[in-house]
Amino acid sequence: MRVLAQDVPKHLDREITVSGWVHRTRELGQVNFVLLRDRSGMIQVVFGEKIDYTPETVLTVRGMVKANDKAPGGAEIHPLSVTVESRADINLPVQVNQDPDKYPLEALFDHRFISLRMPKLRAIFQLQSSLLKYLSEFMHAEGFFEMKTSKLVGSGAEGGTGLFSVEYFENKVFLAQSPQLYKQGMVATGLERVFEISHAYRAEKHDTPRHINEYVSFDVEMAFIESEVDLMNFERNLLDHVFTQVGLHNRAELELWGATVPAPGAMISAPVVGHDAAKDLITQITGKKVFEINPEGERTLCEWALEKHGVDLVFINDWPRKKRPFYTHPSADGTKTLSFDLIFRGLEITSGGRRIHDYAMLLESLPKFGMTLEGLGAYPTIFQYGCPPHGGFAIGIERLTQKILGLANVKEASPFPRDRKRVAP
Amino acid sequence: MRVLAQDVPKHLDREITVSGWVHRTRELGQVNFVLLRDRSGMIQVVFGEKIDYTPETVLTVRGMVKANDKAPGGAEIHPLSVTVESRADINLPVQVNQDPDKYPLEALFDHRFISLRMPKLRAIFQLQSSLLKYLSEFMHAEGFFEMKTSKLVGSGAEGGTGLFSVEYFENKVFLAQSPQLYKQGMVATGLERVFEISHAYRAEKHDTPRHINEYVSFDVEMAFIESEVDLMNFERNLLDHVFTQVGLHNRAELELWGATVPAPGAMISAPVVGHDAAKDLITQITGKKVFEINPEGERTLCEWALEKHGVDLVFINDWPRKKRPFYTHPSADGTKTLSFDLIFRGLEITSGGRRIHDYAMLLESLPKFGMTLEGLGAYPTIFQYGCPPHGGFAIGIERLTQKILGLANVKEASPFPRDRKRVAP
Repeated sequence: MRVLAQDVPKHLDREITVSGWVHRTRELGQVNFVLLRDRSGMIQVVFGEKIDYTPETVLTVRGMVKANDKAPGGAEIHPLSVTVESRADINLPVQVNQDPDKYPLEALFDHRFISLRMPKLRAIFQLQSSLLKYLSEFMHAEGFFEMKTSKLVGSGAEGGTGLFSVEYFENKVFLAQSPQLYKQGMVATGLERVFEISHAYRAEKHDTPRHINEYVSFDVEMAFIESEVDLMNFERNLLDHVFTQVGLHNRAELELWGATVPAPGAMISAPVVGHDAAKDLITQITGKKVFEINPEGERTLCEWALEKHGVDLVFINDWPRKKRPFYTHPSADGTKTLSFDLIFRGLEITSGGRRIHDYAMLLESLPKFGMTLEGLGAYPTIFQYGCPPHGGFAIGIERLTQKILGLANVKEASPFPRDRKRVAP
Repeated sequence: MRVLAQDVPKHLDREITVSGWVHRTRELGQVNFVLLRDRSGMIQVVFGEKIDYTPETVLTVRGMVKANDKAPGGAEIHPLSVTVESRADINLPVQVNQDPDKYPLEALFDHRFISLRMPKLRAIFQLQSSLLKYLSEFMHAEGFFEMKTSKLVGSGAEGGTGLFSVEYFENKVFLAQSPQLYKQGMVATGLERVFEISHAYRAEKHDTPRHINEYVSFDVEMAFIESEVDLMNFERNLLDHVFTQVGLHNRAELELWGATVPAPGAMISAPVVGHDAAKDLITQITGKKVFEINPEGERTLCEWALEKHGVDLVFINDWPRKKRPFYTHPSADGTKTLSFDLIFRGLEITSGGRRIHDYAMLLESLPKFGMTLEGLGAYPTIFQYGCPPHGGFAIGIERLTQKILGLANVKEASPFPRDRKRVAP
């Protein structure tokens, strides 16, 4: 029975078996050390004889556990037998036991199967796994139905630009930018509360630290809401749950990045600022007149929120109609919308709002956006046959990961990122 | 505060608010009934006056709850006020309150946003949501990391046939058939135990009740296994958890389809039959010589398992090498493989096995399958730099849903199925 590295100190003076990767060797002649790495951590193995294990070689070691204050975890293994499961080539394209900062990002992406072995990079995806877990468990507990909708669509929810095309037998279809159409449709089927965690695609030529062409979208949609306030309150509780659980269960990963999550409850006091008030606030703080809320403005708002409300998250609502998609529900006077963004540590991680559910209102809205009913496929039928008031939002999983850990580039939060030029590995 | 239909009987003689869809109306003149449907069930609303609500209109009703033995759930609502949230067009393309069997499958797919409102069809996706939940919660509890890997790949894991191509900026890439490459790579990064639930694509021209071109694949991969036996045992516990939880929490959905899940613990006694022995068994039972295990043979095996072992699941292992992909680990004598299928109620729902993790063995294997190292991109680097013994399996979510509920066609288990001809809605 294999013992994980983290549990070895519990087996003092007993014979156990461990398996893992040779993270580092230290050869002093008479006594030689192997630092063995597994999914739980590291354990030192001490050899009295000469060793010849290349870094990253996979070993299974049977041996006695002995206390040693100088060893990581306070224990080490004195081997009785060693099996080489898989010998690593000596010419590693990146040194796994070095700091990833020593390599350019592109080199880490080029040799992704090796660079992801670096504990600091692996930690990104251990944390991301927790995000997927805690987001999903909260939604199920709140009675939402998890769905998986098609990613092969006839047109884009946002109007047809920025789509990748797919040769589908005799047809040409597109990769979905979001499950917007489907999540609204599924709410109207009577499921009422749905969520999906799936890939989404944007064929945008951006090359910025905040853009990625294939990403994972956490999408929520719920019926019988009044306004975006219901959605913001829901997201407060959702993210409070996620931050709290991550704070409890992902301490090792946070530590590797010198990162913290907002304290339990902090999310609840995130301020809400109207779009125009937010612009005024940025102007007031920076002394510069702003015409739209750009990345610099988003950073300013989060700094302000941290100082005034103790949390670096800000909701921005009351967006002007022309800045939101056609399906966004207008405010009573028709100039604003019942929509919001959530800015976390200077980056938009969520966009959402109440949707138009009234067929007549949809018909009236389309020409304002230069759109036609015909261009929307089956979408309008959702509203023709009885659709409740509803709304929702989406969180970009890579952006959430990025901002929790403080990664410089969102691509670092994708195990195999896709950008304008990168399609492998 | 809105009350759900299922909870109305708890509020006898109190004033409450409900919201939902007009499932059916019954007009007797002096007294008229609306059966209101929400995500939890149905509730009867009784009107003393004439009503004019088209089926599928969305209403919010405030009223008094009164006991009535003849009403569904033993209670009904006497309304004080009614708000029409959204009026449904009278010309419904399919009648939501009719049995879906009255319509051809293609009509149900053509008008999917409406047909999914039929309680029996909606139940498919309520059950599927539970499958996603229980599969995922089991994996997290077992210490697996949930990952989301790219679906845009340079080549296919299975050798390059049956791929959909995507125009990706200046490149041509393909939609991934499975995360095979990535899940093996992620195991080797030291995560050791990973799973993914994502879409997968097969550009196969099949038109059978068991094939679909876009499906949801539940993928598992784990390090430090000995053989396919470890994987089969793991899957036994996984599916036992899923069947047990579904049996407890999805009784309403199972009842609508007259379906049952294998009893708690039954999965543990599913028999394992070697590939050749399985052929002999089919021959022996049917009296017909079989050359391969075809769908009819799979049904025969499950009937046999149900009779002899009390469970309609059979594992088939010891597959000949030429019937499995190049990456499958051969048996000691090189003619068979350490691989398996799981057949559930006559349909293969899982394929899996130990993989080749030794670089030299991979090099030796490739020419036997007419493959070259160059055609595999970054895949071989996984094995060059220290890779533990490992293996895994995949479950098709739609097939699992299909067989639990007894759906005639796997496409019924996809909310928006894609086949040779269908790309909308």
